[in-house]
Parts: sequence; C-alpha cells; structure tokens
Amino acid sequence: AIYKRLVELKEQHQWSDAELDIALSLSEEGTGFGLHSMGGFVYSFADGSPEQVETIGKQAIARAIIGAYAQTELAHGTQVSHLETTATYIPEAREFELHTPRLESSKWWIGGLARTATHCVVQARLILPEGDKGPHLFLLQIRNLGSKSYGALPGVDNGFMRLSRVRVPLSAMLSRFASVTETGKYNKPLHPKLNYGGMVYIRAGLISQGGWQTAKAITIAIRYTNVRRQGGGSLGHEKQVITYPSTYHRLLPILSRAFVWIFMGRSMTQLYSELSAQLAQNSTALLAETHAVSSGLKVLVTSISTEDLETARRCMGGHGFLAVAGIGTMWAQWVPSNTYEGDNYVLVQQVVRAAVKNLQAFLSFPNVIDAAASLPPSVFCLRHLVNPISVPVDPFSIPGAIHLLELRGACMVFEHNKRVQAKEIDGSADWRVARAVTEAFVARQVGQLVQDLDKRLSEKSAETLSTLLRLARSDSNHYLLTTLEAALVDLLSLDLLPSKKTPSKLDSASSHKDSVSIQEEFRDRSHELRSTIALLEEELLPHAIGLSDAFGFTDWELNSALGVKDGRVYETLWERTQLDPLNETDIVGYEEYLKPIMEYGRNILEMDKAALAKL
Amino acid sequence: AIYKRLVELKEQHQWSDAELDIALSLSEEGTGFGLHSMGGFVYSFADGSPEQVETIGKQAIARAIIGAYAQTELAHGTQVSHLETTATYIPEAREFELHTPRLESSKWWIGGLARTATHCVVQARLILPEGDKGPHLFLLQIRNLGSKSYGALPGVDNGFMRLSRVRVPLSAMLSRFASVTETGKYNKPLHPKLNYGGMVYIRAGLISQGGWQTAKAITIAIRYTNVRRQGGGSLGHEKQVITYPSTYHRLLPILSRAFVWIFMGRSMTQLYSELSAQLAQNSTALLAETHAVSSGLKVLVTSISTEDLETARRCMGGHGFLAVAGIGTMWAQWVPSNTYEGDNYVLVQQVVRAAVKNLQAFLSFPNVIDAAASLPPSVFCLRHLVNPISVPVDPFSIPGAIHLLELRGACMVFEHNKRVQAKEIDGSADWRVARAVTEAFVARQVGQLVQDLDKRLSEKSAETLSTLLRLARSDSNHYLLTTLEAALVDLLSLDLLPSKKTPSKLDSASSHKDSVSIQEEFRDRSHELRSTIALLEEELLPHAIGLSDAFGFTDWELNSALGVKDGRVYETLWERTQLDPLNETDIVGYEEYLKPIMEYGRNILEMDKAALAKL
Repeated sequence: AIYKRLVELKEQHQWSDAELDIALSLSEEGTGFGLHSMGGFVYSFADGSPEQVETIGKQAIARAIIGAYAQTELAHGTQVSHLETTATYIPEAREFELHTPRLESSKWWIGGLARTATHCVVQARLILPEGDKGPHLFLLQIRNLGSKSYGALPGVDNGFMRLSRVRVPLSAMLSRFASVTETGKYNKPLHPKLNYGGMVYIRAGLISQGGWQTAKAITIAIRYTNVRRQGGGSLGHEKQVITYPSTYHRLLPILSRAFVWIFMGRSMTQLYSELSAQLAQNSTALLAETHAVSSGLKVLVTSISTEDLETARRCMGGHGFLAVAGIGTMWAQWVPSNTYEGDNYVLVQQVVRAAVKNLQAFLSFPNVIDAAASLPPSVFCLRHLVNPISVPVDPFSIPGAIHLLELRGACMVFEHNKRVQAKEIDGSADWRVARAVTEAFVARQVGQLVQDLDKRLSEKSAETLSTLLRLARSDSNHYLLTTLEAALVDLLSLDLLPSKKTPSKLDSASSHKDSVSIQEEFRDRSHELRSTIALLEEELLPHAIGLSDAFGFTDWELNSALGVKDGRVYETLWERTQLDPLNETDIVGYEEYLKPIMEYGRNILEMDKAALAKL
Repeated sequence: AIYKRLVELKEQHQWSDAELDIALSLSEEGTGFGLHSMGGFVYSFADGSPEQVETIGKQAIARAIIGAYAQTELAHGTQVSHLETTATYIPEAREFELHTPRLESSKWWIGGLARTATHCVVQARLILPEGDKGPHLFLLQIRNLGSKSYGALPGVDNGFMRLSRVRVPLSAMLSRFASVTETGKYNKPLHPKLNYGGMVYIRAGLISQGGWQTAKAITIAIRYTNVRRQGGGSLGHEKQVITYPSTYHRLLPILSRAFVWIFMGRSMTQLYSELSAQLAQNSTALLAETHAVSSGLKVLVTSISTEDLETARRCMGGHGFLAVAGIGTMWAQWVPSNTYEGDNYVLVQQVVRAAVKNLQAFLSFPNVIDAAASLPPSVFCLRHLVNPISVPVDPFSIPGAIHLLELRGACMVFEHNKRVQAKEIDGSADWRVARAVTEAFVARQVGQLVQDLDKRLSEKSAETLSTLLRLARSDSNHYLLTTLEAALVDLLSLDLLPSKKTPSKLDSASSHKDSVSIQEEFRDRSHELRSTIALLEEELLPHAIGLSDAFGFTDWELNSALGVKDGRVYETLWERTQLDPLNETDIVGYEEYLKPIMEYGRNILEMDKAALAKL
C-alpha cells in the first residue's frame, strides 16, 4: 500500500527514479518491493544485452512486471561461485534447463518472491557442452499476469524456490557481457568483474542510507534529551539529560558522523556515475578502485551507524525502548545491512587484499616519489611510508588529525603485509586494517569538504553548510577528533600519538624499587586528545538542536513521540499510548489463567493455617 | 499461560522459589509476571514490617494476590528522590492520601499493572506534618478479587496509573525500616540505604541471567557455524565457517565469558545471602561494598552480553536474522537490561564514586602497607599503588594477566581521582574507570576459580569443570587474555603493557629525516598479546562443541533451528519455515495493490510506443 502510494506520488511530483529510491528508504516500513528496484531485479539488467534492456528491462523500470533477484541458496550465499543451481544449455531445444539439485540449493528468502513478483532473475552456474562457466543470470517468469490467474506457475515453489528442471529459452540469459551461441559456444566477457557495477551502486545507496538513518535517530535523541530532565538540580528544576557529559559525549559524535556519512554517500554516487560511464565504454580502469572504496565505506558506515542507532536509543533511557520512540524499528530494519550485499566480515578481506596489492605494487616501484604521486585515492595514505613526512605542528588540528589517520592507515597496511608474508594468524586483522585504511580515506575527504565549505561560505551560500562548519572549527574538526579517539588502540600500539608529557615512572624496568610509597604520577597518553574533544564538545552543545534541525526532518518523517519538534514529548506519548490496541479491551484470560493461580495460592495459605491450628 | 504451567511444574517437582525464577528466565517469553516475583513486588516486602511480611507478603509469595511495583513515573525514573507522587498523612483519618499531581507524574509502564495485578506497591514521597520525608513504599489494592468483578477500582487508571487523591490506611506503608506513628511522627531508619538489599538481589539475578543468555546464544552459534560451510575448498567441500580465524576469534571469547558470568552470578548470589543475614541483624557493614560490586558487575555483564548476543547472531550470517534462529528474540528481550535496575550509564557513576572514596581513605592512612591489607575486595587492586610491586615474569600467564588487569584498575582510579580534584570534564571517564575496576575484581575471582579447579580436579570431580579448564591452560587463561585485548587502550595509554621489542623508528622526533626511503620496521606493541591469543584459540577450537555442550541445553530450551544438537540445520529450517502463517495463504492484495501498479506501467509503455509511432 505504501509502495502504491509512493508510485502515485512519484508520478504526481515527477520524481526521478533516484528520488523514488530515497522516498522509499525514508518511509520506514519494508514494502516487499525493495528488492525489485534497489536490490537486484532492475539493476541486474545492467548485465542485459541492449535488446533485453529495451524490452524486459523497460517493463521492469515501468513496473509493468515486478521482479525478484534469486541469488542466495539455503546453504550458499556470499560465494556465488559455489552456488548449486545449474542452467544447462540444451542446443537441440535452444533452451536452458534451470535446476536446483537438492534441498540445500533451494533459492532461499528471495525478497518479494513469495507474494509479489511476477518474474525473477536467477543466478545459476552456466553448464555448456564445453564445461561449467560459473554463475550467470537468467530471467524466469514465475507467475501468470492475467488478473484472475495470479498463481504460481507449475514446477516452481515460491518464497523459497526449488526449480525442478524448468526450461527457459536461450534469450533468457542476460547477455551484455557474456553470451552463448545457438550451438552452445561461450563468448567470454571482456573483464571477469564487469558485472560488479551493480553492487557498487547498491553499496553507494547503503552509505547514503546509513547517513540518513543516523540523522533521524540523532535528531530524535537530541530533541528528547533536551526535554527530559533527570537529577542534578532541585525538585522540579532537574538538569536536561543532554547537559551531562556522559550523554553528550555519546550523542555529539553521532551527529558529526551523520553529516560525514551523508556526504560520503553523495561522493560515492558520483564515483558510481563515473564508473558507469567508463563501463559503457568497456573500460574497467576505475572498477577495482571503486570496488575497494565502496566496500570499505559500506562496512564502515553500516557497522558504525548500527551501533549509533542503539546508542541514541539507550541515551533516551527506558522511553527509548517504546515502539513510539521510533528508533527500535529503525534499528531492526537496518541491522541486516551489516550482513547483506557482502557480509561485513567478508568484505573487509577484499578491502585489505586490495590495499596489500597496492602496497606491493608501490614497494616494487623503483622511484618511490613518483610512485607515491600516482597512488589511487583508496590507499593514498601509503605515501606516508616515504620519508620525509611533513608533520603538522598541532596533532589535533585538522591537518594534524588527517595526518595521524593517514599515517595509521599506512602503517597498518605495511605491518599487515609483513604478517601475511609470515603466514601469521590474526582473526581481527582484516577488520582493523580495513577500518584504518577506510578512515584514512574518509579523513582526506573530510579535509577536502572543510576546505570547500570555507570557499563556499565566503560566497554566502546555503545555510545548512554554515551550521555544518560548527562541527569543524577553524582549527579542529569534531568528526576527525572522535575518530582519532576510537582509533587509540592502533595509534598507541604503533607509537604514532605524539605527546609532550614526561615518560611514565611505572615501566617494568623500574618497578622493583625498595622504597614503600604511593605512585605520584602516571602519564596518560590519551588524556590530551580526550580533553581537546571535551572542550570542543562544550562549544558544540548549544548548537546541537540547530544542527539536528538542519537535517530538515518533519515530525511525520521521524514518526517518533520522543522526537516531536515542539518538545511536547509527554503529551504526545500519552496520546499515542491511548492508541495501543491493548487499551481497547480490559481483562483477558482472567478466568482461564489468573484465577486458578490465585485460588491455588489461597488454598495453600488456608491449609497452612489449618495445619497450624492443629498443633 | 506459560506462567500458569510453570507454577504447576513448581508444585509437581517441588522447586524452590529460586528454581522457579531460573525456570522463568530460561523460558523466553515475557510472562507479565516477571515483575511480580523478580522485579519488585515480592521483594519490596523486604521493606515490610514483620506483620506485613506475615500477612500480605505471604499472600504475595503464594501468588494468592498478584502484584506490580509502581516506581517509575512518566517524567522520572532513576532518581527516586525526585518522584512527584505524594503520600500525605492525614492524622485525623489515620490514612495516607496517594496522589499524582500532573500528567508527568503518572506511574508509567508498570509491568503487569495493566491486566494482571491485583495489588501494587507504590513509591511515593511521604509528606508528614513535620515535612517531606522522601520516597517510601505503600501498598495499594487496585482490583477487586471476586471472580466476576475483576475490574479496576475507581479513581485508578491502569497500565499507566494516575492516582487522584486515593486513600490507603496507615498500615499500607511498608514499615520495616522507617515508620509513621498514628499522630504522624516519623521514625527514621537505622541506615539511609537499608532498602538497597532488594536491588542487590535483582542485580545478582541479572548477572546469572546474562551468563545463561550468553551460553544459549553461543551454543547456537557454535553449532551452526560447525554445520555451515562457505568458501575455501572446492565445490561441495567448502570450509566450516567456524574454522575461519575471523569467526572463531569472535565466538570463542563469548564462550569464555559465558562461563565466567555464570560463576560470577553464583558468587554474587552468595554475597547477597551474607548481606541479607547481616541486614537481618541490622548490620550494614557489607552494604556499601555489595552495592558497589553488584553495580559494577551488572553494568559489565549486561552491556557485554548484549553485544555478545548480537555478535553471535552476525557470525551466523543471513540465517542469523531468521526468527527461528532464536537469538533475535533473546536480544530484544535482553537489551533493556542495560537500562533497567539502574541505567548502566548512571550506575557506573556510583561504582566510580565508591572506588574514589576507597582510594581517598586508603591514601589518607598513615601506614599504607596496613591499609593495603584491609582494602575491600571491590578495590583490592589499589594495593598495587604501593611499591614494591612483584611483577610476574610472563605478563600473559595467569598471574601476569591478573596483575596487569589489577594494575590497570588501580592506575585508572588514581588518575581519575586527580582529574576529579581538578574538576576536569570527561564524558567517558566513569564508563572506562568502572570497567577497569570491575574487570580487576573479576580477574582476581577468575584466578581463584582456576586455583580451585586445579584442586578439585585432582580429586577427579565433575566433568563440566574439567572441560572448563580447557579455557584455562596451565599457563594462560582465555578469558583473561581477551579481556586484556579489550583493555588495550587503557594499558597502552598508561604504558602498562610490557614489551621486549626495540623502540619504533617512527617517533615524532626522528621523522624529519633527509633520506628518501621506505620505513622498514614499526613496533606494534599489541602484537605479542594478539599472537598469544591466536595460538591459544587454535588449541581451543576443537573443543568448542564440547564446551558449549557442557552448558547442557536441550533443543527445546534453545528453541533454535540453527542450534539443533544433531546438526540437521537445513532440514529443521525447511520444516519450521513451512509453519510460517504466511505460507497458509497464497496471494493477498493482488487486485487491490499490485494489479494497478503493473497496469499503470503497461499503459506508460503503450503511450511511449504510440508517441514513437507518431514521429
């Protein structure tokens, strides 16, 4: 119903397809159409031949047919090369036979397949007379379209789908890159990863979405913790919850990240457009780089934003758990993003592999200065491995923080490469290295953004941008500093964090002293960074409401009793609670369940009394 | 219905009340009775006078009445001193008048109140002729008990509850500690925090529960990741997911923690018994210490176990999100434990305040050696502030790891005390310091446990204990080492982590070199710890199934298709999916929603074609 209404609105307001996607992602309820437009069906036609795009692809875009994307199998997901479903070409018939050989190869939880889709694109291993050509895409109609006969076609079992030797014509194979001749010969694609483009698009979308989800949650939490008062002052004059350092030190970094993720989403979408234009020319120059950047950012943004949603909810105490608070539902719908479109723990391996490959190429270059200049953006931080490094004087200034984050990225890749050579096992290495590399990339982008803001602001441009600058004072940036704080283990492990303090008295060499005394002084290496952040946050706090208003959400979009813009939180909570269906009836199950329990209890007490009387 | 059945089973099997509580917490569904027995009503009678315990308290225990505990108000929770509900004593009538003055003081989301309870205990500020005496407890009947008239009493509005000048007799005040005379005079309690006992009991319960929840989740995840195969080998011979270091390095630490939390829960329950015995003698010697320990452990266990549940779920990839996987529901029911019985971010303040108070007492003592010997267990780590400290040779042995964790706790409290004196703001300090102090306490307990195991094992005792020892090799313990890993920021910040490596070449003093070269060597201070853990985990991996079996869960208790003991995961998944109510009908909403969308799409394509034909 929501989807139907949105399609109507799209028509009415002449939205573009991209705008419809954003409207869809902002409307919280899952529509069952997500995987038609976003997740696979429409975009799988990026793999279609020009004719296929013109016919069936156009129908899909116009929603004259509704599609599902059938990749995952019950026992196989991430590794498409291990899918068990086969598409065997039968030259005599000029048909493929689609088949799922056993229970474990059933296509499983295919979004929209059970009730909505009329067609689907099936990932199956192409079996030709000359051999197994690995996974390819095939179009399969699964329902009749007549209005009376919207039933499943025979041989197909829906929701999950088991295919028992189902035939489709030769033309059903999506054949932009690879194709099969009538006699069953294989035409290889130009580049084995040409069809990665679609995944890049989806990941770019996830990065934007992570930003907007975070923005919603933090708007709700900042508004509510401004209204809520707890402890501190005298009765009736308690402190606003947001004024506690333990609260705003959790909330403000989320606010900063929301802005950064939204901007990163925009730049990823732009990068995808460049990639698409190149792929249309059959050039794959950008492919590996785009794949690495989009994978790293997808992991970073989905994992951190999921945590941030939950942190925002917990900052609202008990009320945060109410359904009408709004964040719980968001979290439940967002958390799977850590697992789909590449499980984050699998994707980091690819990010790290790409970085190591780039490092090895860099190290093998005879002239390191030249090599440093031509490093791709995803690993531009590696140039710091070359001396001399110009270190900014203030490590917590904007250039200083970027320098530290890039240095950390470079050192982590360098170290990791050595460990890989030595075949050492380290279960958390990929996660840590991918994060370091990606945060180095983001840091440089944020630096660029801040510079551009300065430029644009001198031209008195958009108001949103001027509020954003408050997250970046002329001399320091809140996102960068809190990212440094989260990166402390790496910075300290690698001895990268500069400090002006004297060394500790407590090192193991000197700990066997004879004198009996209390230690007077420890050197806390992270103290300087933490107190710099504390000062910046005191400055930012008064702007928190303004900055979250800058996202421009209406009450309807936020759909949260705690996040109402006028601050009438308790009244709204009271009103919404009256709507709870449980409040329509009074007592249910008293005779059946409660009464026997209480009567049983009374009987015991009577018996005890009687027993006592007998004594 | 579940509750009724459990009460029947209790009778049948002669369970104790504590056994019923465990059965309740193991049955996953919320029963609406939780707050009758666990959360407040029954235990609020710890505040009742002997007569009240004998009459109404006994009825409550026998479940002849069903109670709710009405503390939280719409706009007030944690800080009971700021509750707005009043109980004004009217001497002429020998009655209290209970009153909630405004919307914001409504008693809010009182568990079981809306439909189940017959009585409740109301927290209200006691107003006497001589003044406001702060919060006290009052018994209020809210429903008639006759079987026909199980309706709400007038003047009371349920679920939430607004009290409009409701009268209760003088005897309704729970008056074990404080009481009011007929003429309205106040009898002060012996100790202002005497009624903290109940909270300690609840927290002890939460620690055990956190352990068992973790045990359930990790059993499911270990079993499923043994069955699931993904990537690695050839088609049909892929690797078990659990054999990837990035998987088992997430799962094994959870397994270790489950054992530790269960043992900590047991020792807290024991400590509570000692406290109760002392309180019965009106001695409050143990109260402050028990309050500090139980608060610290409650925060540690609820926050880490919540994360661990989600980590276990994500290790199971996409299938982890299925309802039939079982962990999602557990997580949703467990996550509020971070907020109730003291919001974790509020509780840590009390843990830190207690530790700082102990430190100041310790520092003011003229003879530090004597003072060190008499430190209470919660801050026994502070003795390390006194030289000489005997440092174990191997920092990653069991005594070495305990030493490091205690040293870290001591240094963190010491540093924090200085910052507090200097009135520095640090929003994350309480969280970090409380964690350090609590983990130092747990480390010592684990050390004790391992010693005891050694002793008991030489007597060839229980099998469970022998499997446990595998998590603790003779020379190192997995829980302690992974706790050190998680504590790396603190250890590195304070320069506590010993290392045998040469210093880094990359320190800021030497970074301005003239030569153009690639850095050859960084010193990674955390590498030694991480590789020690990696070796230990390779040894532990083959025992993972055995160790999780040791918890002894049946398939019925786990209630997870992915965690079935016989490993028939896919078959069970298939069977349970057939039970999904959505599979009972086929197409819903086609005529209403889907058809118009597709027709609209076809029309557009027709119009396009027509327009094209005109050209």
